[in-house]
Amino acid sequence: MRKREDFIEWYPEVIEKANLSDKRYPIKGMNIWTPYGWKAMKLIDGFIRREFDATDHDEVCFPLLIPETEFKKEADHIKGFEEWVYWVTHAGTTELDVRLLLRPTSETAMYPVFALWVRSHADLPLKVYQIVNVFRYETKQTRAFMRVREIHFFESHTCHDSFEDAERQIQENVEIIERLSKEYCLPYILCKRPEWDKFAGAAYTIGIDSLMPTGRTLQLGSIHQYKTNFSEAYNITYEDESGQHKPVHQTTFGMAERLLGAVIAVHGDDKGVMFPPQIAPIQVVVVPILAKGSKTAVKNECQEVYHELKEAGLRAHLDERDLRPGNKFYDWEAKGVPVRIEIGNQDIQAKAVTVVRRDGESKDMIQRNHMMSKIKDLVNQIQTEMMERGEREMGENTHLVTSLDEAKTGILMMGWCGEESCGHEIEDQTGMSVLGEPVGHEEYSGKCIICGNDTKTPICVAKTY
Amino acid sequence: MRKREDFIEWYPEVIEKANLSDKRYPIKGMNIWTPYGWKAMKLIDGFIRREFDATDHDEVCFPLLIPETEFKKEADHIKGFEEWVYWVTHAGTTELDVRLLLRPTSETAMYPVFALWVRSHADLPLKVYQIVNVFRYETKQTRAFMRVREIHFFESHTCHDSFEDAERQIQENVEIIERLSKEYCLPYILCKRPEWDKFAGAAYTIGIDSLMPTGRTLQLGSIHQYKTNFSEAYNITYEDESGQHKPVHQTTFGMAERLLGAVIAVHGDDKGVMFPPQIAPIQVVVVPILAKGSKTAVKNECQEVYHELKEAGLRAHLDERDLRPGNKFYDWEAKGVPVRIEIGNQDIQAKAVTVVRRDGESKDMIQRNHMMSKIKDLVNQIQTEMMERGEREMGENTHLVTSLDEAKTGILMMGWCGEESCGHEIEDQTGMSVLGEPVGHEEYSGKCIICGNDTKTPICVAKTY
Repeated sequence: MRKREDFIEWYPEVIEKANLSDKRYPIKGMNIWTPYGWKAMKLIDGFIRREFDATDHDEVCFPLLIPETEFKKEADHIKGFEEWVYWVTHAGTTELDVRLLLRPTSETAMYPVFALWVRSHADLPLKVYQIVNVFRYETKQTRAFMRVREIHFFESHTCHDSFEDAERQIQENVEIIERLSKEYCLPYILCKRPEWDKFAGAAYTIGIDSLMPTGRTLQLGSIHQYKTNFSEAYNITYEDESGQHKPVHQTTFGMAERLLGAVIAVHGDDKGVMFPPQIAPIQVVVVPILAKGSKTAVKNECQEVYHELKEAGLRAHLDERDLRPGNKFYDWEAKGVPVRIEIGNQDIQAKAVTVVRRDGESKDMIQRNHMMSKIKDLVNQIQTEMMERGEREMGENTHLVTSLDEAKTGILMMGWCGEESCGHEIEDQTGMSVLGEPVGHEEYSGKCIICGNDTKTPICVAKTY
Repeated sequence: MRKREDFIEWYPEVIEKANLSDKRYPIKGMNIWTPYGWKAMKLIDGFIRREFDATDHDEVCFPLLIPETEFKKEADHIKGFEEWVYWVTHAGTTELDVRLLLRPTSETAMYPVFALWVRSHADLPLKVYQIVNVFRYETKQTRAFMRVREIHFFESHTCHDSFEDAERQIQENVEIIERLSKEYCLPYILCKRPEWDKFAGAAYTIGIDSLMPTGRTLQLGSIHQYKTNFSEAYNITYEDESGQHKPVHQTTFGMAERLLGAVIAVHGDDKGVMFPPQIAPIQVVVVPILAKGSKTAVKNECQEVYHELKEAGLRAHLDERDLRPGNKFYDWEAKGVPVRIEIGNQDIQAKAVTVVRRDGESKDMIQRNHMMSKIKDLVNQIQTEMMERGEREMGENTHLVTSLDEAKTGILMMGWCGEESCGHEIEDQTGMSVLGEPVGHEEYSGKCIICGNDTKTPICVAKTY
């Protein structure tokens, strides 16, 4: 299977074949969202909006540009980003007094304003999110949806009156990820990153990682507990019930277009992309099988089926192009449409339609009179099975090891004493990265794989993108 | 009425009272979209998407940054924008070889790529749009939604195989504007701009202007016929059926957050903003009128009414804050919610609810058992009446004049011979701007208001923002 053997070549090829992104824009790492790719991304965004609206987050949109003076207020944060930011130095023919940077993330855009928005405990919790593009000057090799310089980005930012309430927010985020993963059919693990890999300015960071077909993990997003690190720098305080002014506790949650990249990588095959129905721009494509003598009847039947599908709320497409059916099949397989309906004279005679699953699991004739309920069931079934397939594959590539000699590809779980030196030793010996302690892991009792000391802390280790 | 007497003070005040935008961001002219303002803008965008999706435009998203080398290919265009653009000169600690600019509009981002997308007549028409933020370094005084430096922007771009097909596109755009104006309750005029005021690079420009309460017009958007001006510079050619390579004909259509600014300006009053129901973030607010002895019954009834409204698909809100009803009324009037439902013990006894229109046109008790159909009718009626009110007001302030002595405030229509010198003379004598010849105007026969020559061309003239 080419995907397994040569993922690095396979991945951009299936994206190009499906026309999800055009990388011929004259700036490296800044790609064009084509109509088809953008539709998929908007469906992905739609579920994020649903989840964050339902949990009382307000959508906002903050300016893109950040004054250098604001950016520099949190010392760790600026250090984490200074190699990565794009600088605006001129406007028209004028040189700016204060340089402006393109947001790489919006802490430093939002927090000076949060200081104005938050006055008393009655203003808390403050929960906002935005879906915007952010900019990072990547020096590593770029790759569509996975590593780009203009990134389609989701970020939520919350302020709380206590550490405990901020922790509850993080728990809410963990639940949101679980629900989203089912819509995207993306299995994942959550790991609390080690100290040396936490986000610039965070007290701790939870990474959301998904396993790619190469055995490497891809970080899909992250959740950060900031405690009062930013609120002290940006003076975001509230008056508590006793009249005291206190800094707020903050969290953030970020995800990006990598969600789409991961879906492509996890579910695609040698025919191309394979979209989970919930985020497929087209869920069902209708292809007429025309033969002499029945053309009009077949065309009419296809029209009728197409309109029924649309009315039933499915994202349907009727392919009336002047091409052979085989060419059409090839195109829609490359584009990852979950269900194909073929209608020819035989189907009409049998009062049926032929239904083919993109994942190759079945090709059936379905009676026309209960087509719609069958198609809806099938769409749900594909969604469930794609999730299960993804989880199975990730499970098969996650290994508990007790010696580094057992180290193979995929995600390795092992004991770690918690000492940074042993952590680095693991990384050095395996050439892998410590993802961190899995969130909510089962009770564990083992030994540090390096020093042999008893530990109750397992960690996940993997090669990463 | 303060709005009429002192629009310049009134306008930012009602925006602040309604909390539609926060201008305390530390960069002038770059404002924060608050949750309430952003909801309104997304509703406005939603109708744009509906219209452009329905007319076979594909939504895309092009990169924000444009290389200086691409930007400079169309000479007039760069001249029109060079004072206005923000320049990225550094990334990380590296000085860039080619400076990058933040898009002020996307012609020069899209057209090098259109040259790759368009090969043959079968690829035409190419019709795409995007809703993104653009950047213009405004030196005039900034004003929320009307003149800002980061602009929430809609732009469609089309390529055609002939001038005639491009003209049909412009006609389609004219029809789209007519439909949108009814959703936004925004009366407008379309004028073909005089030569000296057309868009940089356009063959001609049609401006979409709305009349503000001050008697000045505000340009809401514009449509451009480019002919082959850009396609020749960017080498966007197609192979016609005879195998010849020809440059495509292009059009664009742009609108921006000014739509929201115009709605505020046209429909607001001294109590605050007034939203047309179709774009109101909250269409109906339910306010409990609590009195001793009936609190629980009233609260329950309010909950029930609120849920019925939501289920009926209305954007409803239940105001359960611990405030006096009068304070709540004040808030929701400021925020422009079209319909308020008050429920107190009296209403419950009468099996009714009290329904108050934001525009002050009525306050009625409506029987509970046919509340929902009445509310829906009322919402539609308000929408229609707001449009009518706007149109009446614009009509009353549009005057046909035959001598510049008659010149007053509002939109003036007069004869013009078409000579640029007479046009400038009109501008000089009136201190107003020539908006141009009204699109699709009735047959006209008059004299040029300056030179007295016979003419069949009327023009509109107004003070503008």
